Amino acid sequence: MTAPALLRPVEWEGAAETGGLKMLDQRLLPLREVWVVARTVEAVAAAISDMTVRGAPAIGLTGAYGMVLAAQAVRKLPDAEARPKLAAAKTLLAATRPTAVNLFWALELSWKTLEANRSPAALLALAQRLHDEDIAGNQRLGALGAARIESGMGLLTHCNAGALATGGFGTALGVITAAHAAGKKVHVYVDETRPRLQGARLTAWELKRLGVPHTLICDNMSASLMAKGKIQYCVTGADRIAQNGDTANKIGTYGAAVAAHHHRVPFHVAAPASTFDLQIESGAQIPIEERSTTEVSAWGNETICPEGTSIYNPGFDVTPAALLTAIFTERGEIAPVNAAGVARVLADPRRA
Amino acid sequence: MTAPALLRPVEWEGAAETGGLKMLDQRLLPLREVWVVARTVEAVAAAISDMTVRGAPAIGLTGAYGMVLAAQAVRKLPDAEARPKLAAAKTLLAATRPTAVNLFWALELSWKTLEANRSPAALLALAQRLHDEDIAGNQRLGALGAARIESGMGLLTHCNAGALATGGFGTALGVITAAHAAGKKVHVYVDETRPRLQGARLTAWELKRLGVPHTLICDNMSASLMAKGKIQYCVTGADRIAQNGDTANKIGTYGAAVAAHHHRVPFHVAAPASTFDLQIESGAQIPIEERSTTEVSAWGNETICPEGTSIYNPGFDVTPAALLTAIFTERGEIAPVNAAGVARVLADPRRA
Repeated sequence: MTAPALLRPVEWEGAAETGGLKMLDQRLLPLREVWVVARTVEAVAAAISDMTVRGAPAIGLTGAYGMVLAAQAVRKLPDAEARPKLAAAKTLLAATRPTAVNLFWALELSWKTLEANRSPAALLALAQRLHDEDIAGNQRLGALGAARIESGMGLLTHCNAGALATGGFGTALGVITAAHAAGKKVHVYVDETRPRLQGARLTAWELKRLGVPHTLICDNMSASLMAKGKIQYCVTGADRIAQNGDTANKIGTYGAAVAAHHHRVPFHVAAPASTFDLQIESGAQIPIEERSTTEVSAWGNETICPEGTSIYNPGFDVTPAALLTAIFTERGEIAPVNAAGVARVLADPRRA
Repeated sequence: MTAPALLRPVEWEGAAETGGLKMLDQRLLPLREVWVVARTVEAVAAAISDMTVRGAPAIGLTGAYGMVLAAQAVRKLPDAEARPKLAAAKTLLAATRPTAVNLFWALELSWKTLEANRSPAALLALAQRLHDEDIAGNQRLGALGAARIESGMGLLTHCNAGALATGGFGTALGVITAAHAAGKKVHVYVDETRPRLQGARLTAWELKRLGVPHTLICDNMSASLMAKGKIQYCVTGADRIAQNGDTANKIGTYGAAVAAHHHRVPFHVAAPASTFDLQIESGAQIPIEERSTTEVSAWGNETICPEGTSIYNPGFDVTPAALLTAIFTERGEIAPVNAAGVARVLADPRRA
């Protein structure tokens, strides 16, 4: 069995000075596979905000590629004019989505690069290096997570933390892909992931492409599957992880982790080191994005609730470290999940 | 403040011998309020199967009214011809939905009645008596549940256990209605209730009509609201309750009860005595209906997952008695919830 080619959801197209950022429009999957090309920072920012591109690591890479376009736009300007425009571009990109920290991390690296050399080529070289490292890192963390999976297990995942959410391999789905590639027979239960249905639209599409057996469920069904003994291992991605291991991820992750805890099913997070925010002590300090209420109330042209209904629509929730069995990163496995474990794996320079 | 008139989702229209069963088509709410009239047992059975009428107590009453139509159809036939047709009508109605036990209860009462007197008038008198008793019983159990609610509490409910699901007052929403009518200031978080969205479509519509403040959420958001201290009291209806208090209710109830248990938030069930199945010892013996996968995969004309995706769509789950704080019935409150408590409240003839 040959593994399908890597699916890179964002990819630079053309020369550094004149090219653009090609993105798979994830809003249209699984029905249509449409690629769009952004040629301005504004177009990249809009693509992050409107979720053409989504997933914390993929957003980070998109931000880095966005800075290549910013550098293109000012490459013939003198420094005094270019610098404020580059700063504005960084600010625009940083303002798109508040929760995932990988974006801020990538923008800081881009900024350091352009302080030394603001050529589009230098910024493109950085973005492509981060992109390659993301894929290689996902493969490493995927292998760590897969080592804890046994043939015959039922797995649960929430939202999409696959190739589409990253540079091209996946974090939570990278773990599952690695287990499948190692010949382990698993069955994946896929939370549809309301309100935007990334599980139904994206994860089911990726698992079909990879040939991994799976069943789509509504988010509210996983607890009863655990009670029936159908799930032995849970794994999700992350949007931001605090010093102590508290993890923000797609809304619904916390409820699934509580259910797993109740049923003594191990619950894992798979995320690159760039997802850690070592500036904050705990999950209480992670800003949670609230998104448009129409994500909940509207299905295509249909409204599913009475006019004027008040709606709460947080994009993320925070799962406390105590509910996590392990976090898999490209630098190693954090288990048990606590501040000491995070510090050990992330602060050790030999692991970087 | 005047309470709105009772909303009776099913209602007999016309004389016993020639009338029909008027039903509010709940599939079209909240966008359209359409009433349909069934004039045959087959039409009533279809309305239960396709969820024109839903909610365990409402299904029971609909079954009793259905038997009036069965009696109409055979009223000019000799006994030898009428009896097999009546038995077939009962079988047809009983085969519509397997989990809610109120339907079988109502059909048994109809059968006992028609063994003595198979006139449409006798069966209509029974159905209307059950209907009136359902409303009065809901008001009694609503008052019991409301007594445990304090002003300022955040409440959580799942699915729809309101007027629409019963004779016209509601079980879980009857509790909330009673608290609201008593002047207690509450805020209700309404689970949208995938896949069929009875919370968004029906419960939000009822609460708007009643003037009770509420916020619609996706099912996967309630755990994080509990973690934030926004929910102090949960209440749902039930489709079948075993001898030991194990309760089958709409899929997602169990996960909400697990989350409530984790956060030490009391979780209550409100249901009439007809919801108890004293023939079975525990929830393991409750048959769980699996419904069409298109309920999950299709939104109007749109498909949200890849073609051929395997889907699991149970209509119900079972919440073990140990996770329930109390069950409110018209005969009294069961707390703690266990076999002795169920027997005490349901078996005591003075309470019947």
